[in-house]
Amino acid sequence: MAASVWVTDGRPGPASCHDPRVLTDTATLQVVLDVCGVFVFALSGALVAVRRGLDLFGIMVLAWVAGLGGGIIRDVLLGLTPPVGVRDWRLLAAALLAGTLVFLFYGRWSVITERAPEARPRRLATRAVRWLDAAGLALFAVSGAIVALNVDAGPLAATIIGGITATGGGLLRDLLARQVPEVLQRELYALPALAGAAFVVLLDHLDLLSTVTVWLAVALVFGIRVLAVTLDLNAPRALRTPT
Amino acid sequence: MAASVWVTDGRPGPASCHDPRVLTDTATLQVVLDVCGVFVFALSGALVAVRRGLDLFGIMVLAWVAGLGGGIIRDVLLGLTPPVGVRDWRLLAAALLAGTLVFLFYGRWSVITERAPEARPRRLATRAVRWLDAAGLALFAVSGAIVALNVDAGPLAATIIGGITATGGGLLRDLLARQVPEVLQRELYALPALAGAAFVVLLDHLDLLSTVTVWLAVALVFGIRVLAVTLDLNAPRALRTPT
Amino acid sequence: MAASVWVTDGRPGPASCHDPRVLTDTATLQVVLDVCGVFVFALSGALVAVRRGLDLFGIMVLAWVAGLGGGIIRDVLLGLTPPVGVRDWRLLAAALLAGTLVFLFYGRWSVITERAPEARPRRLATRAVRWLDAAGLALFAVSGAIVALNVDAGPLAATIIGGITATGGGLLRDLLARQVPEVLQRELYALPALAGAAFVVLLDHLDLLSTVTVWLAVALVFGIRVLAVTLDLNAPRALRTPT
Repeated sequence: MAASVWVTDGRPGPASCHDPRVLTDTATLQVVLDVCGVFVFALSGALVAVRRGLDLFGIMVLAWVAGLGGGIIRDVLLGLTPPVGVRDWRLLAAALLAGTLVFLFYGRWSVITERAPEARPRRLATRAVRWLDAAGLALFAVSGAIVALNVDAGPLAATIIGGITATGGGLLRDLLARQVPEVLQRELYALPALAGAAFVVLLDHLDLLSTVTVWLAVALVFGIRVLAVTLDLNAPRALRTPT
Repeated sequence: MAASVWVTDGRPGPASCHDPRVLTDTATLQVVLDVCGVFVFALSGALVAVRRGLDLFGIMVLAWVAGLGGGIIRDVLLGLTPPVGVRDWRLLAAALLAGTLVFLFYGRWSVITERAPEARPRRLATRAVRWLDAAGLALFAVSGAIVALNVDAGPLAATIIGGITATGGGLLRDLLARQVPEVLQRELYALPALAGAAFVVLLDHLDLLSTVTVWLAVALVFGIRVLAVTLDLNAPRALRTPT
Repeated sequence: MAASVWVTDGRPGPASCHDPRVLTDTATLQVVLDVCGVFVFALSGALVAVRRGLDLFGIMVLAWVAGLGGGIIRDVLLGLTPPVGVRDWRLLAAALLAGTLVFLFYGRWSVITERAPEARPRRLATRAVRWLDAAGLALFAVSGAIVALNVDAGPLAATIIGGITATGGGLLRDLLARQVPEVLQRELYALPALAGAAFVVLLDHLDLLSTVTVWLAVALVFGIRVLAVTLDLNAPRALRTPT
C-alpha cells in the first residue's frame, strides 16, 4: 500500500518505467491525458463534419474516428486487443461529448463570428482550437510511446508508434471526410510528435521517466507545435475543405 | 454427442453464450449468417465498381473488400489472427460469386431498366438491394457482437465491434471507390447496427442468448433499417456516385 | 554450426520451409528482399507526393506509407506485433533514403526530361520505374506468403496475405494521395502477386521451398507483371493524378 500512497503523491523518483510504482502512476496519468486528447481531436472531427454538411450522426462518427482512431491503431499495432478505444467508456464519452457540444454550439458561434469576422471571439476561438490541437498531438505522442514501452516494443517502435498514435486519428478523419490529410501538408505536424516520443524513449533508457519528465515531454511537443503554428500565420491550412 | 444432437436440433435453451453447446450452435449459425452477409455486401461493392467503370478485376477487388472488410477489421480488433476473411474459402467464394454475378448480369439488367425506367423490374431490383443491404447490416452486427463476446471483450467493446463489423466493409468500399462513406450520411445506418449489437450483449448478460433470440436480434436491426429506408423515400442516397 | 554454414552456402536442398535451416535461410533472404521492396515502393510513394506538390515531409510520409504499409498490414493480419515495419531500422532507412533521393533529384531530372521529352533518359527512367515496381510486387508477394506460412496461417490465408502484402502499400499511398487505387485499375497487378504467393504455398506443400525456388517464384511474378506492362503500352496508367 506504500507504493499506492507513493503514486497518489505523484512524487517523481529515480524509478524506471518498468517499475510497477511508476507504471501505476503513468497509467493514471495516461487516462487523464488520453481523455483530454480524445476530447480535443473529437472536437476537430466534429468541426470537419459540420463544415462538410453532415447530420448529427455523421458528426458523431467523425468525432469518434478522429478522437479514438489514433489509440485504436496504436493498440492494434501493439497487439493490445480489443483496443482501449472500443472498451473504455470514458474515452467514448469524451468523443461523444465533443460531438454533442459542436452540434449544439456551432450554429450559434457561426452567427456571431460571421456577423463580425474580425471580432475578438473568432480570433480567440481560432487560437483556442490550434492550442487544443497541439495539446492533443502532444498528449497522444507521449502516451503512445509510453504504452509501446510498457509492452517492450523497443525504442524505434515506441518512437514511430508515438508518432502514429498522435497523427492516426486526424488521418482517418481526413480520409473519411475526403480531404487531403493534414499530416501530408504540415511539415511541423508529425515531426514534433516523433520528437516527443523519442524524448520519452530516451528518458526511459536513462531511467528518468517520471510524472514530471512525462509532462516535460508533453510540453516539448506542445511548444514546438505552437511555435510552428505561430510562425506560420500566413498558411494555417487547418481543417481545410478539399479543393 | 448429446450436445451435438442438441445443437443440430437448434432448440433454444437457458444456456448462456459461454456454454459450449450454444457456442457450437452459434458457430454454425454464424457461418451461415456470415456467408449471406458477405454475399450481400459483395454485391454492393461490385455494383459500385461497375458504376465507377472498373474492369472485371476491379469489380472482384471491391466485392472482396466490401464483403470481407468488416469481418477482417473485427478479427484484427479482437486479436483473432489470421482473420477468418482471409482463410475461410466459403467467405471468399461468396464474395467472388457476387462479383461474377454482377459482372455477368449488370449489362443485361441495365439495358432492360434503362429502356423502361418506371418498369416493374427496376423497382423490384432497387427494393431487393435495399432489403439485402439491411439484411447484411443486421447479420454482421449480430455476428460481430457474438464473436466479441466469445473472446470476452466486454459489453461495451462487443457493442461497438458489432457496429464496426456491420459498417466496416461498406466504409472500406467507399474509401477505395472515392465516394463519401454511407455511414457518414445515413443517420439510421450505424444506429440500428449498434442497437442490435447492444441487444445481443443484453441477451448474453441475461443468459438468454439462443438461436431464437439471435434471430430476434437480426430481425430487430433489419426491421429498424427497412423502416428507415421505407420512410426515407425522397432521399435514398444508396450507392451514390461522388459529386 | 553446420546448419549455419549450410545456410551461408545458400545451397538448395530437399528441406521444407519448416526446417530451421531453410527458415534461417529465408529469413536472411527475406530481409534482403524486404529492404529492396520497401525501397522501390517508397520511390513510388515519393514520386506521387512530388507530383501532388507536397513538401519534404509529405514526401517522407508517403514514401514511408508506400514502402512499409504492405508489410505492416501483413504483420497485423498475422498477429506479429509490433510489425517489423515500425521496429526494423533497415526498412525505415530504405524508405527515407528513397524519399531523400526523389526530393534531391526529381527537380533536376524533370528539367532534363521536359527539355527533351523523347530523349533517352526519360525512356530509360520510365522503363526502370516499371521494372522496379514489378520487382517490388514480386518480392513482397513472395515474402508475404513465406511469413504467413512460417506462422502456420494455412494455404489460402498465405496466398491472400501475399497478395495483400504486395498491393497494400500502394493502396494506402493512393488513399492518402486521393487518387484511384492502382489495384482497382490494373487487372494484371494483383493477379501476378496472388499467383506468386500461391506458387510459394504449392512449393511449401511439396517440400520444395528453397533459395532457388523462392527466387523462381519472384521471377514468375516479375515476369508476368513485366509482360503485362510491355503488352499494355497504350494504357500505362501508372502513378496517375486524379481526374
